[in-house]
Amino acid sequence: MLLGSLRAEVLKANLALVRRGVVVFTFGNVSGISRAEGLVAIKPSGVPYEELTVEQIVVTDLDGRVVESNLRPSSDLPTHLALYKAFPNIGGVAHSHSEYATAWAQARRAIPCLGTTHADYFHGAIPVTPDMTPEEIGGEYEKATGEVIVRTFHDLDPDAVPAVLVANHGPFSWGADAADAANNAVILEYVARMATHTLAIDAEAVPASHALLDKHFFRKHGPAAYYGQRGRK
Amino acid sequence: MLLGSLRAEVLKANLALVRRGVVVFTFGNVSGISRAEGLVAIKPSGVPYEELTVEQIVVTDLDGRVVESNLRPSSDLPTHLALYKAFPNIGGVAHSHSEYATAWAQARRAIPCLGTTHADYFHGAIPVTPDMTPEEIGGEYEKATGEVIVRTFHDLDPDAVPAVLVANHGPFSWGADAADAANNAVILEYVARMATHTLAIDAEAVPASHALLDKHFFRKHGPAAYYGQRGRK
Amino acid sequence: MLLGSLRAEVLKANLALVRRGVVVFTFGNVSGISRAEGLVAIKPSGVPYEELTVEQIVVTDLDGRVVESNLRPSSDLPTHLALYKAFPNIGGVAHSHSEYATAWAQARRAIPCLGTTHADYFHGAIPVTPDMTPEEIGGEYEKATGEVIVRTFHDLDPDAVPAVLVANHGPFSWGADAADAANNAVILEYVARMATHTLAIDAEAVPASHALLDKHFFRKHGPAAYYGQRGRK
Amino acid sequence: MLLGSLRAEVLKANLALVRRGVVVFTFGNVSGISRAEGLVAIKPSGVPYEELTVEQIVVTDLDGRVVESNLRPSSDLPTHLALYKAFPNIGGVAHSHSEYATAWAQARRAIPCLGTTHADYFHGAIPVTPDMTPEEIGGEYEKATGEVIVRTFHDLDPDAVPAVLVANHGPFSWGADAADAANNAVILEYVARMATHTLAIDAEAVPASHALLDKHFFRKHGPAAYYGQRGRK
Repeated sequence: MLLGSLRAEVLKANLALVRRGVVVFTFGNVSGISRAEGLVAIKPSGVPYEELTVEQIVVTDLDGRVVESNLRPSSDLPTHLALYKAFPNIGGVAHSHSEYATAWAQARRAIPCLGTTHADYFHGAIPVTPDMTPEEIGGEYEKATGEVIVRTFHDLDPDAVPAVLVANHGPFSWGADAADAANNAVILEYVARMATHTLAIDAEAVPASHALLDKHFFRKHGPAAYYGQRGRK
Repeated sequence: MLLGSLRAEVLKANLALVRRGVVVFTFGNVSGISRAEGLVAIKPSGVPYEELTVEQIVVTDLDGRVVESNLRPSSDLPTHLALYKAFPNIGGVAHSHSEYATAWAQARRAIPCLGTTHADYFHGAIPVTPDMTPEEIGGEYEKATGEVIVRTFHDLDPDAVPAVLVANHGPFSWGADAADAANNAVILEYVARMATHTLAIDAEAVPASHALLDKHFFRKHGPAAYYGQRGRK
Repeated sequence: MLLGSLRAEVLKANLALVRRGVVVFTFGNVSGISRAEGLVAIKPSGVPYEELTVEQIVVTDLDGRVVESNLRPSSDLPTHLALYKAFPNIGGVAHSHSEYATAWAQARRAIPCLGTTHADYFHGAIPVTPDMTPEEIGGEYEKATGEVIVRTFHDLDPDAVPAVLVANHGPFSWGADAADAANNAVILEYVARMATHTLAIDAEAVPASHALLDKHFFRKHGPAAYYGQRGRK
Repeated sequence: MLLGSLRAEVLKANLALVRRGVVVFTFGNVSGISRAEGLVAIKPSGVPYEELTVEQIVVTDLDGRVVESNLRPSSDLPTHLALYKAFPNIGGVAHSHSEYATAWAQARRAIPCLGTTHADYFHGAIPVTPDMTPEEIGGEYEKATGEVIVRTFHDLDPDAVPAVLVANHGPFSWGADAADAANNAVILEYVARMATHTLAIDAEAVPASHALLDKHFFRKHGPAAYYGQRGRK
């Protein structure tokens, strides 16, 4: 079996989304990439999570051609591929329709960085894409979804803000590998829940100071990080 | 035992409502129809879900006469029958008092189609019935409930929008069979939750574009569908 | 052991509150009464639910004197006793600090009857008590809590509306026996959740029509009831 | 192993936070102090809760020097130490990013004492710290976090109000020991949830009367307490 360990990791990351409560039914999908081999492993389309096996994880090349599987890949594959091509450091992509992050996407509002939980993982607001045009929607829709995400990041660092809200659709997140991408999907949902409650408590709540956000992000990320154990992510 | 496999399917769909968290106590009921035999299988009235057996599922004809059972059918049976008569393609009906969908019914507001999760299953807003008159309420109430639903769909396609909110009461949904009807009840609740949060984030949130909604609905439904695996729903 | 079966029933009803998610830690208590013997069985004060045994359920007379137990009864006992004395048909009382019902109590707002879920169990709004005076609070507080509830029902039928919100405190409910009282506590919480969401969707939402509320209440209660199975509550 | 029973207690209190649903991933930490020995036991930094063992609990002195462990202590240790030094009666400290309490911290709003659930544990509003200055954030940040908490309590009794919200960050709580500190973290989250819902029901809701708050707090705390069993907390 091609890419056995990557597929196992992708399976595990998909199941983590279910266990962490960010997907219901067959919503959502996680992929991982082997940059050395130019191959991507992704969840098959519409297969219930409880039935999912390592063998069913679909392997494709970077043009989306299935290399090994008799199942169709997730229909969102072209979005994942666009992200892998544009964001060279990422090793995994996750997509969910998680309840609160999706609500922000439906409201077409970026999630402001209201506190340190957010800043521990995302260095600034989670952006929302502009609306897609009827042409983009009517053409290669899933590929265009990836492209509108990439355009949204034209002046943002995808390694510092590893998530986005696709307007009227839902969140995509990414990370060093499939597990990290799924983790970011879970954190994003948690951050979205808390931002929703914060607005309910005070509709005029404002983002935390830049000093505080920098402190928390760089406490966990980059050369000066001191959170966690050495040699452990 | 008459209609053994239909009853088993109806039992399973009723229990799915519980497992998916959309019913508490004895609220809610699911039925399925055998169009060939003109018989309907439905949950008995007021029996706790944890005790429910295949034998207890009540079989009636299309006039609501019990054909096999010594238990009373769900008191909502006449509503189910009215839907089976008016909507010729449906094979199952589900009713719940799920938390957020019922809140929309209590607010007497249609659930706007705010995003692709909604559009994947329902082609447009989930309508709300008009108030029932004192005459309808005082007469054959459950039958009249079915009739007010049918009137609400006089210019809507029940196969494209397989759910409704009965004003000040709660949701009814339907589908190809009992399992599909129950599934739609669960999705409806999820969509209702997200719509509530969306309004909390932005009270002025507007529906997604028609282009996006059509794209998502027809990606999963009808001859051009390409979501999921071939030969698998 | 005195009143063995009543104590067992009271234990079971207390544990039902935990299982149904309406209490955390040692909040909440359920009691039951034997009217023939003039004795009440109630949860001991401050004992964790997971440790609770039948033997620990405290039996007292109607003046609150402990008849059998070496544990103190719940400090809310005098409230329960006041309700048993004033409401002659009730056989059980439950008190919780359930999340949403308590929020309504904290807002000092009656829960309007917005739909049929509410009307199936409570014939009209769930009233809220007036504020207690410093004298009432500083004196026999728990007894005075019962008295303010009784005064709140001076023109209400406690058998038709088996619950109340004590202002800035939380809900009390009652019923035919301890199990029924606990059941009403769970339904009340569910109704309170849905009412909260209904207001979030439409701040101007109004109660359902009297015709609809009467229909649902009397479909389940009284001589014309036709919900459920004959001979089964 | 140094301080075996304190470490076991600290481990148990950390796991209680997970079981009670107030932490996700590695967010949050609980510590306990042995005042006789001048040593503190605290969760290691960034270790998943499911892997945590008694041996991994880090022991430090009151200056934060690790006395026994090859793991780093939680990066929030200096905050805990500042609280132990300033609040002489406390034996445990807990920190979480629990969903609703953190939302109040993000809104930079004190949680008003709206009812008796709150008053049973906290004698008045849960205060929120002022914003930290860029100098405090850029210097010894975690120590400065402790200091801003202590300043917030300059005219408050930390034994009567055993919790605080750090602005744009989240809650800290404390108590007689690690278990009590963790308990207060759970109660605080519950109180924060109910306060949020109360404002949703009535944006103008006001705190309960002083008479009611005193009654409930002193019913459970201090020499006149009569809640619970004698000789049992």
